Amino acid sequence: MKYYFGVDLGGTSAKLALVNHSKKIVKDFSIKTSASASPEKLAKDVAAVFKKIKFSPGQRPQKIGVGVAGDIDVQNGVVRVSPNLGWKNVPLGPLLAKSTGVSIHIDNDANAAAWGIYQTQVPAHIKNVLVVTLGTGVGGGLIINGKLHQGATGSAGEIGHMVMDEEGRRCNCGLKGCLETYAGGTHLVKLAQSVLSQGLKSRLSPLYKKDPNLITPKSIADAAQKKDSLASAIFSHAGHMLGVGLGNLIYVLNPEMIFLTGGVSQSKDLILNPLRKSLKERPFQTPIRAVKIQIAKNPAQVGVIGAALL
Amino acid sequence: MKYYFGVDLGGTSAKLALVNHSKKIVKDFSIKTSASASPEKLAKDVAAVFKKIKFSPGQRPQKIGVGVAGDIDVQNGVVRVSPNLGWKNVPLGPLLAKSTGVSIHIDNDANAAAWGIYQTQVPAHIKNVLVVTLGTGVGGGLIINGKLHQGATGSAGEIGHMVMDEEGRRCNCGLKGCLETYAGGTHLVKLAQSVLSQGLKSRLSPLYKKDPNLITPKSIADAAQKKDSLASAIFSHAGHMLGVGLGNLIYVLNPEMIFLTGGVSQSKDLILNPLRKSLKERPFQTPIRAVKIQIAKNPAQVGVIGAALL
Repeated sequence: MKYYFGVDLGGTSAKLALVNHSKKIVKDFSIKTSASASPEKLAKDVAAVFKKIKFSPGQRPQKIGVGVAGDIDVQNGVVRVSPNLGWKNVPLGPLLAKSTGVSIHIDNDANAAAWGIYQTQVPAHIKNVLVVTLGTGVGGGLIINGKLHQGATGSAGEIGHMVMDEEGRRCNCGLKGCLETYAGGTHLVKLAQSVLSQGLKSRLSPLYKKDPNLITPKSIADAAQKKDSLASAIFSHAGHMLGVGLGNLIYVLNPEMIFLTGGVSQSKDLILNPLRKSLKERPFQTPIRAVKIQIAKNPAQVGVIGAALL
Repeated sequence: MKYYFGVDLGGTSAKLALVNHSKKIVKDFSIKTSASASPEKLAKDVAAVFKKIKFSPGQRPQKIGVGVAGDIDVQNGVVRVSPNLGWKNVPLGPLLAKSTGVSIHIDNDANAAAWGIYQTQVPAHIKNVLVVTLGTGVGGGLIINGKLHQGATGSAGEIGHMVMDEEGRRCNCGLKGCLETYAGGTHLVKLAQSVLSQGLKSRLSPLYKKDPNLITPKSIADAAQKKDSLASAIFSHAGHMLGVGLGNLIYVLNPEMIFLTGGVSQSKDLILNPLRKSLKERPFQTPIRAVKIQIAKNPAQVGVIGAALL
């Protein structure tokens, strides 16, 4: 029986998991990380977990897969930039290889999640899949012809910074009107806060008055479920603009399936309904009708499973 | 020696060519077509050309590749819609197979051009290429991992109808602000005509006064070469918006090369310079710096060569 080992490395914690040949997690672990974490310390911590696991002879994985939020040089295992971890040009692959004694594959975390979803939730005959991660920001991963598409520098799938309107709201990246400024959790919250600050009445008002920072994508979704107009408007707009962006991508990539994952996707129909409505307005329907759009299952596990199986 | 036979089927004429194993055209032919052409007549005309060619024993191609502008069902050889030819659900593949006696592969014309460029102008180690056709409209073809990417319904690469600004100018497709409304030849001409109709002085004014229909992308480019402000502004805007659209696609696809082809691309630096400037403004430069952007060679031949080699 073959095992795989994956690491899903985030800004506050790293999930580690042993995955069996049926692509199920059989053991999982957690390590604290931080924006000031030293890569050497992290490599030591991961190795300590990995080496403690008892394997029968021949069962120890010969490779560890790692997903990291940021710009990754997949070929050399270098984290070019990871804002969450405060890293720049960190040779994490070589460091981990040294500390664990096995070979290391590092990839972007959205790519790892895409691969995890493709490996566990997609029928075998489906070869072209787009995975959209709707978290604080917006990311993506592409499966094309059954393979994770990494592109020339491993940067492919960076859908959150497609410019949807050059005159739109300022994005963290410096540009204006990126898809992320319409559908990323941080921007949904900012939009709600900015409207609430103007005194508009909403189910969210008491929460906002208590502390503006208590507004989260989840609290907006809860209010929208209860038909609150402001919260509903925020989700309709986000879903609509996500539909425009995904419509563009459907025309370009013509995938068979699209999965939404990440915190904001848990609002389900609140985001899916306006998204689907927006897609129905496209005149050229052949590729639109061909794509099945759904919310990914097990959003908390697909990243580390994908990393392990990469 | 192996030969290939291709057909590049347009709204006014079809180019046919015999292509040798070095991917060079050794014989070419032309057939008149029209928006009211009967598919049966066309199949007969193509077969007449194909059957007249004298091949040594064993050299007759066993397959014909056809590129058609429109929405193509590649698997069944059906032209779902071709506005140029006025066709809807035409089983061109089966018709041609019957008339010629060989098997037929039909694909979108932009895909055929992309394959032709990939086969003749791209170094062997390059595997991810985006080809952008800037004609009256805007189209595209994707090479991913060394293969023409067709997607679920053969519709992939339809980049001209990516929405760049929902409040933009009305597109022929019914939506607003498609990439085509910024960089398609028809829209460049419309923009020039609309400004000239307001009496703005330009090198193009005499031509416009003679007949507004004499304004073409070529005449605008010629005026821009001579530093005419209106013409230059039109190309800067087109190049800039093309840069925004291609910037989005570079983030998504991370290709090694992008080729521009089609009439409007012949304006070369007029479109390339503002395009490159727009890309330089992107904050995340890793995939931008990795891509080589150039104008395709032999724009009149790549379509039929690509069709032959498909």
